[in-house]
Amino acid sequence: MALRVGVVGGGQLARMMIAPAVELGIEIQVLAEEPAMSAALAASAVGDYRDLDTVRAFAQGLDVLTFDHEHVPQEVLRALVADGIRVHPGPDALQYAQDKLLMRGRLAELGLPQPDWAAVTDAGDLRAFLDDHGGRAVVKTPRGGYDGKGVRVVSDPAEVADWLDGGALLVEELVDFTRELAQQIARRPSGELVAYPVVETVQRGGVCAEVIAPAPHGTVRLAEVAEQIGATIAEGLGVTGMLAVELFETTDERLLVNELAMRPHNSGHWSQDGAVTSQFEQHLRAVLDLPLGEPTPRQPWAVMVNILGGPAEGGLEQRWPAALAAHPAVKVHTYGKAPRPGRKVGHVTAAGADLDAVAYEARAAAAFFTD
Amino acid sequence: MALRVGVVGGGQLARMMIAPAVELGIEIQVLAEEPAMSAALAASAVGDYRDLDTVRAFAQGLDVLTFDHEHVPQEVLRALVADGIRVHPGPDALQYAQDKLLMRGRLAELGLPQPDWAAVTDAGDLRAFLDDHGGRAVVKTPRGGYDGKGVRVVSDPAEVADWLDGGALLVEELVDFTRELAQQIARRPSGELVAYPVVETVQRGGVCAEVIAPAPHGTVRLAEVAEQIGATIAEGLGVTGMLAVELFETTDERLLVNELAMRPHNSGHWSQDGAVTSQFEQHLRAVLDLPLGEPTPRQPWAVMVNILGGPAEGGLEQRWPAALAAHPAVKVHTYGKAPRPGRKVGHVTAAGADLDAVAYEARAAAAFFTD
Repeated sequence: MALRVGVVGGGQLARMMIAPAVELGIEIQVLAEEPAMSAALAASAVGDYRDLDTVRAFAQGLDVLTFDHEHVPQEVLRALVADGIRVHPGPDALQYAQDKLLMRGRLAELGLPQPDWAAVTDAGDLRAFLDDHGGRAVVKTPRGGYDGKGVRVVSDPAEVADWLDGGALLVEELVDFTRELAQQIARRPSGELVAYPVVETVQRGGVCAEVIAPAPHGTVRLAEVAEQIGATIAEGLGVTGMLAVELFETTDERLLVNELAMRPHNSGHWSQDGAVTSQFEQHLRAVLDLPLGEPTPRQPWAVMVNILGGPAEGGLEQRWPAALAAHPAVKVHTYGKAPRPGRKVGHVTAAGADLDAVAYEARAAAAFFTD
Repeated sequence: MALRVGVVGGGQLARMMIAPAVELGIEIQVLAEEPAMSAALAASAVGDYRDLDTVRAFAQGLDVLTFDHEHVPQEVLRALVADGIRVHPGPDALQYAQDKLLMRGRLAELGLPQPDWAAVTDAGDLRAFLDDHGGRAVVKTPRGGYDGKGVRVVSDPAEVADWLDGGALLVEELVDFTRELAQQIARRPSGELVAYPVVETVQRGGVCAEVIAPAPHGTVRLAEVAEQIGATIAEGLGVTGMLAVELFETTDERLLVNELAMRPHNSGHWSQDGAVTSQFEQHLRAVLDLPLGEPTPRQPWAVMVNILGGPAEGGLEQRWPAALAAHPAVKVHTYGKAPRPGRKVGHVTAAGADLDAVAYEARAAAAFFTD
């Protein structure tokens, strides 16, 4: 009988697990928030992932339960584990992706390089941190932030007055970085771990705009350090499935951990068309505790460009004829989501031997989908 | 609104269209013969493809109707076209895939190279053909044959006595060939056509066992002649979607047309993991009349090995741990079909720069799935 994976959440990450599941031969089922979600084709249930009974019913008969996002509450996760359901990543690991203060504390215990940080509960503490760090810092809500939400650069505690009532905040130094990188790691419950090549990510307005794989101008040492950081986190936090570690490369050539994601991640989408094993296939293999696949690139370079927002009028498919005719070698990915300013509605990947040509292809093709 | 493709037939070819449909962003729906078919994930209806009302109801709201096989009757196809439904490939093209006598006649009109052949309706005609061709020949039922079924090598008309009551038979000379090749062509209704590199196919017991892409030891001329034959057939027969042309390479270095398939074909499965655009994505693009994708290989060599029959006990997934651990770079494809002697239940593809290594990988990995 086919192995059965259940995915909580019906967004594009769940959607992008469907293709490798069908190809390898895994049965995939999705618990979607609404009927017309991105992963609707595999939706076997629609309901609230915060409701234990809903998730418990969905989990019946699955070989493993995994996630499109990190928002399933700890009490739900722990009840499922108590039921004997295999949950990967598990609640002990996921808590660090759910709470940035917990994450910072744990990375500090592991001796990993990260920006200076503190937990602040009042304006006075924040003022003190600002005074010690040049008068500006990044304040983050420990929970619920993503794609630039829940993050503010401030020079005065008044700028986060609305957040200070809600409990401790994370404050971090403003890192002087030359660029952002991301390290993908896959780890299975029995311990096997593989590392993808470290990639460069280009953010615009707090949202990932573009990824270059592998990171250009990367020294062997850079790749080794990134992989070592990723492996230490995966093992130290007990991550199973895919882990993405977002990194700052500083002007003095250090790598500092910025954010973590315990699932397939935008910085790994290049692997669908550029690596022997895509991060989505790898995630499925990892959570099922199957041997992991080769993470190496199929071609020297891959560039992934997000389609943010989409066309002002009509769906992405109306732009396919022009885009596909002009760029027959790019791979266009459409998430089945309605266009909306800033929303991630698809991406384009190009791969090949010449980075300039590959980057041009991917950017030019992606430009067909926005106005 | 997403473009909607309907596929008649729920076998592995329909199943393998699901991944590229989901990735590009096409809505795919399948009319399956039974509920638990290979393409069950996308099945929106279950019913008999020979029944006009069933297929007509399935076709409502689709942008195009296409096929997992060539067995939908002409009268059903023509009624759908009369309804205004876009059907690709259309009945005029499909008749040549449905009837081998029609096919031979049309290829002769197009001046294409093929084995000597004749339509025979009685033992006397067949005896005469045998006498003219060294005493042995291949007899085929014009309709319904596949994977070696409906094909017999005979030296006496008595060996097909059971077939001679059923109308005209096709008889073909036994070709003295060095190897078998296959040429994949994609063609869209508006006329654009792309050719994949010609591949070598290795048959065992009338069933495709292995495919090497591109065909090794192939001269430039061989590739050009194969492509020209494929293009002439696609245009001459009005094929839309994927066309596979099976070819004999003769001992005197000619190419002769053996069989045709107007759909993704086993000889093109390597393209899923080995080409920029897989034959399944290409078929969807072609039948939707979208610009075609680049058919070029991503890596110098790809070898696809079929999993025929499967394990004597248990499903293929029970062999995954050992196979995937030993061969982390191969891509395993499982069709979700119960193992049965000789049945195509999956395939394995390896790709890379060294043909010997790639072929070894694919064969060794596939061997894990049979006893």
